[in-house]
Amino acid sequence: MELTIKGGHVDGKIKDIGIEDGRIAQIGGKIGKQGRVIDAKDCAVLHGFENAHTHTGMSLLRGYADDMQLGEWLQTKIWPMEAKLKDKDIELAAELSALEMIKSGTTKFHDMYFHMDSVLKATQKAGIRGVLAYGMVDLDNAEKREKELKEEERFVKHVEKIGDEKIKAAVGPHGPHTCSGELLEKTKALAEKYGLEVHTHAAETRDEVYGLEKKTGKRPIQLLKEKGLLGPKTILAHCVWVTKEEIRTIAASGARVAHCPASNMKLASGGIAPVTEMLEAGVKVLLGTDGAASNNSLDLIAEMKIAALIHKNARWDARLLPAKQALDMITGWTKVEVGAEADLAIVDLKKPHLAPRHNIESNIVYSGKGSDVRTVICGGQVLMDRYKAEAVEEEKIIEKANDWAA
Amino acid sequence: MELTIKGGHVDGKIKDIGIEDGRIAQIGGKIGKQGRVIDAKDCAVLHGFENAHTHTGMSLLRGYADDMQLGEWLQTKIWPMEAKLKDKDIELAAELSALEMIKSGTTKFHDMYFHMDSVLKATQKAGIRGVLAYGMVDLDNAEKREKELKEEERFVKHVEKIGDEKIKAAVGPHGPHTCSGELLEKTKALAEKYGLEVHTHAAETRDEVYGLEKKTGKRPIQLLKEKGLLGPKTILAHCVWVTKEEIRTIAASGARVAHCPASNMKLASGGIAPVTEMLEAGVKVLLGTDGAASNNSLDLIAEMKIAALIHKNARWDARLLPAKQALDMITGWTKVEVGAEADLAIVDLKKPHLAPRHNIESNIVYSGKGSDVRTVICGGQVLMDRYKAEAVEEEKIIEKANDWAA
Repeated sequence: MELTIKGGHVDGKIKDIGIEDGRIAQIGGKIGKQGRVIDAKDCAVLHGFENAHTHTGMSLLRGYADDMQLGEWLQTKIWPMEAKLKDKDIELAAELSALEMIKSGTTKFHDMYFHMDSVLKATQKAGIRGVLAYGMVDLDNAEKREKELKEEERFVKHVEKIGDEKIKAAVGPHGPHTCSGELLEKTKALAEKYGLEVHTHAAETRDEVYGLEKKTGKRPIQLLKEKGLLGPKTILAHCVWVTKEEIRTIAASGARVAHCPASNMKLASGGIAPVTEMLEAGVKVLLGTDGAASNNSLDLIAEMKIAALIHKNARWDARLLPAKQALDMITGWTKVEVGAEADLAIVDLKKPHLAPRHNIESNIVYSGKGSDVRTVICGGQVLMDRYKAEAVEEEKIIEKANDWAA
Repeated sequence: MELTIKGGHVDGKIKDIGIEDGRIAQIGGKIGKQGRVIDAKDCAVLHGFENAHTHTGMSLLRGYADDMQLGEWLQTKIWPMEAKLKDKDIELAAELSALEMIKSGTTKFHDMYFHMDSVLKATQKAGIRGVLAYGMVDLDNAEKREKELKEEERFVKHVEKIGDEKIKAAVGPHGPHTCSGELLEKTKALAEKYGLEVHTHAAETRDEVYGLEKKTGKRPIQLLKEKGLLGPKTILAHCVWVTKEEIRTIAASGARVAHCPASNMKLASGGIAPVTEMLEAGVKVLLGTDGAASNNSLDLIAEMKIAALIHKNARWDARLLPAKQALDMITGWTKVEVGAEADLAIVDLKKPHLAPRHNIESNIVYSGKGSDVRTVICGGQVLMDRYKAEAVEEEKIIEKANDWAA
């Protein structure tokens, strides 16, 4: 073994885990110490967390503008600031995001933004898995459309050329309300040509859904379906304003939904995404933090508690979204098992807020914090151990981010 | 000075703080190193957090029963377990709670439970401020009523005799729906006799309010007012189901409300407490975590983010409950200023999720974690520094709690 994890709680039992060639090779009562040994006594070994929707290039904007209505926030603060961002700013932002994600147990994220070569560089340095999409918007402008598609394909080829098995390209039509029908069709062709994941916003705000209906006579999910963009490789971010019919359509297609409760609430789009109905219909719901400008945290443990709480409350039923299901939503519904990629978040249970241990999962969901993650492994590579990041220099990144804002 | 805190961010500026006789004696640009010196470079110095409603004796029940409807949860799980709890169990639970609170920046809590002598012992050991009430329930039974009042007064005298300036007794009528009119009247007499705070549940669930209206013709706030129990020394826990008229009554009386969003949502009582309306009416709203059986965390930073989010979403207005106001709700609307009790939570800003520093307050509210608190001082006593609890033995308490559950 290259790596042995000793004595952690794995699915309710204390077990050792052996890792070889980036995958889990053995799980058993006792494995001899082989290769580097990670002590997981008094720890829970979970599958690494998956952030299904974020914009890592935005983290330098954390706290730059809060407590504002969406329109004003975008027009007077976020867009003008984004216009000034350069490659190196985005790289630093993505480094900061990757560090924050590693420190809170995330081993994979789905990103959509611009200056994506910079996001790629930062992601590679950090050693985390990234599914990266250049976000396209054409607003019905043909010239802009061709430019966007060209940049999308260039980035896809660039990712192919880099050939890092932890980095995948995705296509990123920003959303059915900001992309023309033609752009959506051409995106579909691009996704097919390269066999890529599709990452798009959908039905985040009520205004956006009404606007689209007025313009096209169609609701977002129907339109995406017609354009051939719904399938098992699709991630639909938000889906707050979807009907039961749309939920059935999503379920039938196998598309995944990235539920982003903190961002939705902070921007006050109103309503609560019908996650209970989605889960009942068999939709694979994941959690996304959205970007640090609208959350403002990338901590999936905090996000998971918020998700578990709001749906119970919205439906007056405390049995909904129980701890196990909430945890599944951040571990990508993936088990720690032999043959799986060795992507692990090891949670330190020796904390007052995680005692006593009637139910370890419930403790993590309802009382855990991202900072309880003590060790993170991605594809067999140790990214953090004993709370210390190994692949990147934590203090330096924080200092550079602070200097940037000052 | 007994204690000097060097170089922290105090209200937006870098300042030193000198502490003498348990109080802040000086705040200035530079104070010479006197007494014990606490390094607060790259830290924000906040007033210690105040947990306005909790049951510290319940933390051994964390994770014991979750994701159940309120009635079943109480009847099949919580009440049978509580019936078995002994003094020493409650003492251990309160020790665990105090440790968790210290580690997340809380320096004062308002408690209501039973076996209160044990809670008092644990609170004293931990060095935190406690306002402790024995919770009375009579359910219209005269014999039970006299027994409860006797125990209440015994405990009040016990606290007086102990004479610890950090511990105050309060009277704790459990709620207008579980206490008879006579018990409420006698409680009022007791509170006046000893000059005590009144701590009661009020309007937590819709059922409870309807039941009370059916029985007495009155809503909870009206009833409490008639019994003379509303005033500046009163804490009303929950207040989810209060009318605008009731909010005006609370505001006029000066009573404080302990808003407990996570517990309310986890137990799925439905609705959202009208905190926006309370704040507009001038009610002093504080945050409570409620007990660890229903939250399951005692982390006020996590609670604060949840509060800030849900009210924006409920009213479709992102400007509501802005960061500063959310922070005021956990710092008891108290400033770090000369003459104030030296109760401080010092937050370590050198974290990826707290960078960059466009707005330190917003970073703490929307991206902070209880575990970012590095130093806690209560009445000039250092309870934690550099993340290490000083007054109590952390590992031992956690181990004992785990052994108890096993």
